[in-house]
Amino acid sequence: MDVRFDRIGRLQENMRAQGLVAIVVLNHDDFIYLFGEDRTQPRAIVPFQGPPEIIVFTGEEPELLAALGGAAQEGRVRVFRSVGGQINDVVTRIRELAAAGGAAGLPTGSSGKPKVGLQMWFDTPAFLVDLFRQVNPEVEVVSSDPVMDPLRAIKDPDELGLMTEAQRLAGLGMDRARQLLQPGVSARAVATETLYAMMRAGAEGTSTPIYVNFGPDTCMLHGRVSGHPLERGQMVIVDLTPRIGGYCANLARTFVAGLPDERQTNLLDTYREMVAAVRPRMIPGVTVGRLDEAARAVAENHGLADYPVNGIGHGIGLRFEETPASTIIPPHRNLPLREGMTVTIGHTVLAIPGFGGARFEDVYLVTPTGAQPLTEYPIEPSLAV
Amino acid sequence: MDVRFDRIGRLQENMRAQGLVAIVVLNHDDFIYLFGEDRTQPRAIVPFQGPPEIIVFTGEEPELLAALGGAAQEGRVRVFRSVGGQINDVVTRIRELAAAGGAAGLPTGSSGKPKVGLQMWFDTPAFLVDLFRQVNPEVEVVSSDPVMDPLRAIKDPDELGLMTEAQRLAGLGMDRARQLLQPGVSARAVATETLYAMMRAGAEGTSTPIYVNFGPDTCMLHGRVSGHPLERGQMVIVDLTPRIGGYCANLARTFVAGLPDERQTNLLDTYREMVAAVRPRMIPGVTVGRLDEAARAVAENHGLADYPVNGIGHGIGLRFEETPASTIIPPHRNLPLREGMTVTIGHTVLAIPGFGGARFEDVYLVTPTGAQPLTEYPIEPSLAV
Repeated sequence: MDVRFDRIGRLQENMRAQGLVAIVVLNHDDFIYLFGEDRTQPRAIVPFQGPPEIIVFTGEEPELLAALGGAAQEGRVRVFRSVGGQINDVVTRIRELAAAGGAAGLPTGSSGKPKVGLQMWFDTPAFLVDLFRQVNPEVEVVSSDPVMDPLRAIKDPDELGLMTEAQRLAGLGMDRARQLLQPGVSARAVATETLYAMMRAGAEGTSTPIYVNFGPDTCMLHGRVSGHPLERGQMVIVDLTPRIGGYCANLARTFVAGLPDERQTNLLDTYREMVAAVRPRMIPGVTVGRLDEAARAVAENHGLADYPVNGIGHGIGLRFEETPASTIIPPHRNLPLREGMTVTIGHTVLAIPGFGGARFEDVYLVTPTGAQPLTEYPIEPSLAV
Repeated sequence: MDVRFDRIGRLQENMRAQGLVAIVVLNHDDFIYLFGEDRTQPRAIVPFQGPPEIIVFTGEEPELLAALGGAAQEGRVRVFRSVGGQINDVVTRIRELAAAGGAAGLPTGSSGKPKVGLQMWFDTPAFLVDLFRQVNPEVEVVSSDPVMDPLRAIKDPDELGLMTEAQRLAGLGMDRARQLLQPGVSARAVATETLYAMMRAGAEGTSTPIYVNFGPDTCMLHGRVSGHPLERGQMVIVDLTPRIGGYCANLARTFVAGLPDERQTNLLDTYREMVAAVRPRMIPGVTVGRLDEAARAVAENHGLADYPVNGIGHGIGLRFEETPASTIIPPHRNLPLREGMTVTIGHTVLAIPGFGGARFEDVYLVTPTGAQPLTEYPIEPSLAV
């Protein structure tokens, strides 16, 4: 277990600056980022100063201590074991930290109470947050985004290495999907074989279900596995999201089972041109909202102004969608990109309802000269059938 | 899309009795239960009376209307389409329903405001609930459990059919795992091949990661995929959770790579005896807490009193853990079982920290004569290696 004391130190600086007495970690992504490894039930407290504290059940303690090497004995990590009294232990600890934060002069929240940060994305359960608020009435629960995002949004070389590998695995999966996309194949079979190919090559699984959509189902904003077999002439969207070391990939391609007709060709060409228009614009300082405008202008030029282009890209890393993620958190539309962010282009489906949709999505690194793809995967929509 | 008007009608009766003006559905399990099919982004409002309302993005509307057959045209389901204004539309609708509930004399919540129910389990994101509260200050958000649970906890024949099939798929996966469990194999390879076998046979995926644990890792309460290859003489736990039609299975087996030694034999025999002690006691009216006591007594008889037995079983259905789920929601420890509930036996790991743990978990139907397993899968721990 490679505890990332460097990242924890920078996080604690941010916490002191913004007045968070503690962050309570309940999510895999923050846990991996700080402790260099996942646990099935990730639970930790990062105080505003001093060693981070990992919470485990008694039965899992020997394994955790072994994984930590000497770090627990040396006092660089506290291990906080518990059978059933976790809630009481956490309450006691939060009270201590609230008092220590007051003594250290940390600024309080809008309620006048000490602030404790929790991640506020899809994987933080409402009932746990409500319970936390109820048993810790002397603190104010705030989103940990403002202290975590400045760190997590910029990827270091270790992270870029894993993300590039995840994207390579997605390419292997897409190769396998292409082989199978023949008239009569079921979307379920394509999804099963594609997942298997990626897992055999090292993927831990995927961060979303594998989407394999045929015909009008290609319009679905969120994809699914189509129910009917592939027919000659239909459009196909395959969207793959393998993970490795917790890091997410995102590779989507649109195919046509045969030669595209005129309307399909227009959709596909438009999308390709949208991506080409966005890539050089994806430089530090530009907002995702502006990227959408560039994409939308291309769609308008192709007579597709009626079909919405919302959120052409999103941040990606240890979460499948992370900052900037304008389709989840509308204010992110105005967030300026920064060098070292990893952002997809190709998230939105350009869809003619009832007819079909297109997407070509890859993961890019934001650089001063525009978006650099982590891997190159061909865009060749026409399938020989 | 087989909208379950029967279930929706019973739900609305419960809502009127308990004073909920609406339930906002944000989760796959409730959506499948009410609408007979999943959507990638499940969003619906069930008002206290009148047709249910499904919310989709514009691009997905043609597909939804087709799936609904005539139900939308006939006014039996309302379709609530939106591009980006979903939040405003929902706020307007919730206000209308709050007023209608007041006019109909529905009881209000403890705050004196009309009550709106949301599911409060792991998959309801805290930030969405906070946002909902913020934009709907005139209503009180409450857990929808008290109106949903009386319906969902008792499984009808359709549900039992799917759950039995899911459990059969888990058995196929376990067969595949057994074939591969030889010294030197990696847990990752076992997990990959097992998932593939289950998906080829029809599983949609799994409701948890596949856990394949070797040696001391078998103590982990929540399992994982072990990092080191299997060694001769080690204990192994494989825990499989395939889904079909959204319904979950749960099958766990403990193996030994070779002949069990004395301590391993004692753990395995104890667990088998615990299951045998719990099965006849799993009858209507008994609480999960009492089942734990019966299991604990067996452990004590075998000299294993020091190792905790908490939550020998949990409810299972469209959620992997649902009511009763005493390890998630402590008051469920005192909930009486009812005929027709589906509950696992074998959830807790009987673990000697640093040495190893055992579990044999299956899904059972609660009947007046005790627990009836949905499928029979052999308990044969010793592997020929």
